Amino acid sequence: MNTMKIAVIGGGIAGVTTAYGLARRGATVTLIDDAASGQATAASAGIIAPWVSSSSGAFYEAYSAGGNYYPEFLAGLHDLGIPELGYRRSGALMVSRDDAELDAVEDRVAQRIAESGSVAGTLERVDSTQVNELFPALSTELTGLYVSGGGRVDGRVLRNATLSAAVLLGAEHCEDAVIAINPLGDTGWRVQTMRGPIDVDSVVVAAGARTPELLLPLDVNCAVSPQRGQITHLNLRGVNTSQWPTVHPFTPNYMTPFDDGRIAVGATRETGSGYDPRVTAAGQMQVLRDALDLAPGLADATVIETRVGIRPMGDDNLPIAGEVPDRSGLWTMTGYGAGGLTLGPLLGDAVARSILGDPAPELTAFPTATPM
Amino acid sequence: MNTMKIAVIGGGIAGVTTAYGLARRGATVTLIDDAASGQATAASAGIIAPWVSSSSGAFYEAYSAGGNYYPEFLAGLHDLGIPELGYRRSGALMVSRDDAELDAVEDRVAQRIAESGSVAGTLERVDSTQVNELFPALSTELTGLYVSGGGRVDGRVLRNATLSAAVLLGAEHCEDAVIAINPLGDTGWRVQTMRGPIDVDSVVVAAGARTPELLLPLDVNCAVSPQRGQITHLNLRGVNTSQWPTVHPFTPNYMTPFDDGRIAVGATRETGSGYDPRVTAAGQMQVLRDALDLAPGLADATVIETRVGIRPMGDDNLPIAGEVPDRSGLWTMTGYGAGGLTLGPLLGDAVARSILGDPAPELTAFPTATPM
Amino acid sequence: MNTMKIAVIGGGIAGVTTAYGLARRGATVTLIDDAASGQATAASAGIIAPWVSSSSGAFYEAYSAGGNYYPEFLAGLHDLGIPELGYRRSGALMVSRDDAELDAVEDRVAQRIAESGSVAGTLERVDSTQVNELFPALSTELTGLYVSGGGRVDGRVLRNATLSAAVLLGAEHCEDAVIAINPLGDTGWRVQTMRGPIDVDSVVVAAGARTPELLLPLDVNCAVSPQRGQITHLNLRGVNTSQWPTVHPFTPNYMTPFDDGRIAVGATRETGSGYDPRVTAAGQMQVLRDALDLAPGLADATVIETRVGIRPMGDDNLPIAGEVPDRSGLWTMTGYGAGGLTLGPLLGDAVARSILGDPAPELTAFPTATPM
Amino acid sequence: MNTMKIAVIGGGIAGVTTAYGLARRGATVTLIDDAASGQATAASAGIIAPWVSSSSGAFYEAYSAGGNYYPEFLAGLHDLGIPELGYRRSGALMVSRDDAELDAVEDRVAQRIAESGSVAGTLERVDSTQVNELFPALSTELTGLYVSGGGRVDGRVLRNATLSAAVLLGAEHCEDAVIAINPLGDTGWRVQTMRGPIDVDSVVVAAGARTPELLLPLDVNCAVSPQRGQITHLNLRGVNTSQWPTVHPFTPNYMTPFDDGRIAVGATRETGSGYDPRVTAAGQMQVLRDALDLAPGLADATVIETRVGIRPMGDDNLPIAGEVPDRSGLWTMTGYGAGGLTLGPLLGDAVARSILGDPAPELTAFPTATPM
Repeated sequence: MNTMKIAVIGGGIAGVTTAYGLARRGATVTLIDDAASGQATAASAGIIAPWVSSSSGAFYEAYSAGGNYYPEFLAGLHDLGIPELGYRRSGALMVSRDDAELDAVEDRVAQRIAESGSVAGTLERVDSTQVNELFPALSTELTGLYVSGGGRVDGRVLRNATLSAAVLLGAEHCEDAVIAINPLGDTGWRVQTMRGPIDVDSVVVAAGARTPELLLPLDVNCAVSPQRGQITHLNLRGVNTSQWPTVHPFTPNYMTPFDDGRIAVGATRETGSGYDPRVTAAGQMQVLRDALDLAPGLADATVIETRVGIRPMGDDNLPIAGEVPDRSGLWTMTGYGAGGLTLGPLLGDAVARSILGDPAPELTAFPTATPM
Repeated sequence: MNTMKIAVIGGGIAGVTTAYGLARRGATVTLIDDAASGQATAASAGIIAPWVSSSSGAFYEAYSAGGNYYPEFLAGLHDLGIPELGYRRSGALMVSRDDAELDAVEDRVAQRIAESGSVAGTLERVDSTQVNELFPALSTELTGLYVSGGGRVDGRVLRNATLSAAVLLGAEHCEDAVIAINPLGDTGWRVQTMRGPIDVDSVVVAAGARTPELLLPLDVNCAVSPQRGQITHLNLRGVNTSQWPTVHPFTPNYMTPFDDGRIAVGATRETGSGYDPRVTAAGQMQVLRDALDLAPGLADATVIETRVGIRPMGDDNLPIAGEVPDRSGLWTMTGYGAGGLTLGPLLGDAVARSILGDPAPELTAFPTATPM
Repeated sequence: MNTMKIAVIGGGIAGVTTAYGLARRGATVTLIDDAASGQATAASAGIIAPWVSSSSGAFYEAYSAGGNYYPEFLAGLHDLGIPELGYRRSGALMVSRDDAELDAVEDRVAQRIAESGSVAGTLERVDSTQVNELFPALSTELTGLYVSGGGRVDGRVLRNATLSAAVLLGAEHCEDAVIAINPLGDTGWRVQTMRGPIDVDSVVVAAGARTPELLLPLDVNCAVSPQRGQITHLNLRGVNTSQWPTVHPFTPNYMTPFDDGRIAVGATRETGSGYDPRVTAAGQMQVLRDALDLAPGLADATVIETRVGIRPMGDDNLPIAGEVPDRSGLWTMTGYGAGGLTLGPLLGDAVARSILGDPAPELTAFPTATPM
Repeated sequence: MNTMKIAVIGGGIAGVTTAYGLARRGATVTLIDDAASGQATAASAGIIAPWVSSSSGAFYEAYSAGGNYYPEFLAGLHDLGIPELGYRRSGALMVSRDDAELDAVEDRVAQRIAESGSVAGTLERVDSTQVNELFPALSTELTGLYVSGGGRVDGRVLRNATLSAAVLLGAEHCEDAVIAINPLGDTGWRVQTMRGPIDVDSVVVAAGARTPELLLPLDVNCAVSPQRGQITHLNLRGVNTSQWPTVHPFTPNYMTPFDDGRIAVGATRETGSGYDPRVTAAGQMQVLRDALDLAPGLADATVIETRVGIRPMGDDNLPIAGEVPDRSGLWTMTGYGAGGLTLGPLLGDAVARSILGDPAPELTAFPTATPM
């Protein structure tokens, strides 16, 4: 039994995966679920298919490792009695009106799939007829690349499942707002909440785009900015969409089908939005216009709801995960941009390992927050 | 005290105004508020400015008479202790990117205003600067015609107010579904509801687009078709929109500002929609695209909700209001299309008068439902 | 390939299971999904555990047969590529503050389980400690009887899945309102919808509590009455409720846990409600008071939503399923009260068989609608 | 023209009234509308009837002065073109099942009304018949004291109206989160927001229950605690409630009728709730049970929504409004508990005056935040 006491601030995917990683290693964890975080996770469309992304370098290394880790992560939850909760591996489909765009990436995707072990499945070039069989609402002008192992998951559901796993393993779940973090003696930290102080050996700030607010009074700079994403959920009543793949054009747009006729389309990438989680007229129009351009078959779909998340964008498009230099025991776990659901489970585990003194090579490539 | 017993079927503007007209003349009225009606009223944007419409002929005659009747109608409610409930005369603004479009209608509008007595107020040609002062979110490319007496009202609020006025005057309000209407003896009618029969001297079917359902078993044809309208409500927080005019481009689109930063934009006119009150991807996109083309200043407005109404469109674009030939005591009050809020108060009163044997010249221009 | 043409009216569980039963036998089916039906299904809490019910006689025979049929029914959907969509067999737990109540039913339940084959699982008498382990929010004053094979399913999800199965097998899905049903020639029927007529050999009226409306003009009496049920969904954040059993006190109340911390509690049984699907102050209070009396651990749960269904109650508490005498080709499928999700799959299949001339012994015990 | 630059933090009634008071005196104001505040205002039931409250001493002095100031405050908004937006003086009705309770307070209320000038109107002892005429849903067991000048207003609407008034007078409205407040040079303050710094001469922290979060890093203690209030809105369709009085039993419960059949009932007073704005099962049940005990006529009313506010309770039940000692230019405006809508307009004006060097005797009775 580990005797460290650790507070994790933030109830989004970053916080709950870190708390879960700590709890299953026996640490004494308090997850402080601040109303100021978790929105990006709850709004997420939940694509788990790093192999089709346009990312590269250190980000892609972590992103693909995160995707490859999913089966193991879900097996761990399953062993605790938590069902798979809507996770489906129904494939990822890159599409274009221009074959040359697909030609240009096919080799890269093939190599990534080969490197993934069995998780990514197989790659297939598909013509417009096959595109339409896979996802009948799409334009007949599109051809594609189909990756059979692409998956999707509802962010809200996964977050809650991971949280309940942490609680089952002994983590304390405290729904409250954090007022301040202060040093305590030489080696500890006091987290001041609305209900009183929580004294710990280490504290992990996983508060998404609001992480800088908590670190600034400690003279620590965390280079993440808020980026609003609006994502709209449509419904095709009476259509079994559970086998439809996620759709990836060569733009930041995407479509994620869920069971029961539900299809999420989006999302906006509104840099400079501030922390203002609203559905706007222009954002809503853009999301629908882009979706209908790609998938005219959605024209008569019912609009169910629009979810809004404020993503924490690392200034170098990299996560900011690790211990803050010169602030022993103070950690951050944020900066995932649109990749939090894929990256969270592996990096949350890595941060947990690192705090407890175990190797965490996944973290070496990333920047940390920095003292001013 | 009148001794007639009358049932009015339908809880939209057509039904409640008829019930109110009957109740204030002493008739014994039961308003059967069928869940199958009233949606068009509840979704309505509530423009009361017939003078700027493109309609003509018998429809315009009734439409403008309906607008001119509003002050008298609201005064009647006020005398019963019902406040004005959000009715504002903040003007109606016709706009165009092409001065020639405005030139072409200016004389017609001027004449209509002159004919309205004082209700329509004054007419003014306004340049792009004035357009922007009147409604700051509009494109600077627009010039306009401003009619100072244009008004707006929330359909849902007006419907409820009229209903409560009818109840105050003794009408019975019965929330139930109508199963069938059958002749009763030689001169009466039995309205079969889920809870039992209601026997009356006359029955008014004011069930909007669903009116034909109730008349078909009586071998009566009512030539109205359902037309879906989707209308989106936006919010400009911290902006006092209570003095902004309604906006009328030379298309079926419009914008209706309400108090408190709320602006309704729309609406779709989906002929052939059937009775299917859904928000659709294509409808939502069209409404927002048209609104932002006209008013780029709404781009960052918050999307609050989209309301959907199924309008009853008369086949000749005319109301179908009056007694059915060869079916003594059977009346209809429907077919108003997008004009129900303007037409309802006057025509509801006219139908009430006609049932009670008083003159109702407003009805002579309109078709009735017809025996097959 | 069967050459019969059949219309099914109603998009609730009764309609979609009948359409599915017909489509998989090769009939030409049009499902007319009237907005006026389906509410009872969509609001349903989805308990599949007939063995713990207080019913008996012909109703219980059908009810238990319906429960035993579930694995076969779901396997059929699965073969079409439709996942199990939230169906869980997490047990059913009868509870009481009075051991004598449990003593009085234990033998009956044991016998029912033995008769069920393997579907119902095993029976266990549990003390208050075990009750609390199974469903930690319950009062510590309760002991219970635990039936391991009890299941639950979301009615809305199952309805949509069955509908999509029917469509996959060739059924046409028509979202429209039915105006009237009329005889056509000697042997057929014309279903008049808002969009036009549909001519068929047989028509199944599966319109829930609104079925009588459609049959009355044909001089057919269908003895079902509307009964409102209000059911409230609570959430225990961060609690893995996916293994919790449904809870059955010796009252009409119940609790149904779903995945992800969601727990449905209810429901009211408001006979005489008419067709008026509203959440009322008294209904909401009653549901919450009864739930907290049984499960004080839900006091701090979040109230998510209240769903309202209008159940079709057969006058003898029996389904009204079968062909109408003297109206060849006219069928009903309704009257399930609170048991529609359990009864629907088997009886929908039985009605389909019967229409197509195959044996359907399940139907012989039930009354039909009757000519006047 | 005043040349001071002032930031006001908080978009609830405290913040907008202070900003309005400053803007109309010519100061340069930025209202920083932090998502972390304003919930208590938006959830408020909006009773403006201090004379019937059980408060006394300094709180009552301010409370009654706030009520007496309302006509002047609304006249100021009206002069800017902002309509009265739902404010009604339809009376306040104290009720009890025990005449002795009413006897015990009658003299005190009479004296308060006499002191109010004309604002409070007249006092009348009413029997159970009159109680029922004034508010027909109430129990017939109640008698009452009726104060004709009691008023009510929708908190959300009034907040937005005051905000738009401030903006019309030149205030800048900045929707963003505040990260930190820091001293700037000798005499100013820097407010750090997500979008960058705002440098001012004075800063007013009006962030409700979250005010302490912003002051703690400055070593300032603000003795307010969060107290959750859940309030449920019911609807009596077709009933003209616009003339019904607010209802005050001798408990913290109340009822506030609005126009259009809407009645707010509540509210819980959940001390120790933390900052956790949820509708809970126990809270919802309590609010409905208390309402139906008082007003059985609401049993069949429709439940529309439940609003949740987190009230800032001053530790001595007094506002904490004024400049912080030893922190020149740092002000607070919070601690109003359930009285914010009544107190806000007058005290916001007083704080504005005090900042600008004008007399503000209203503030002398209240504590301030204190340096540690």
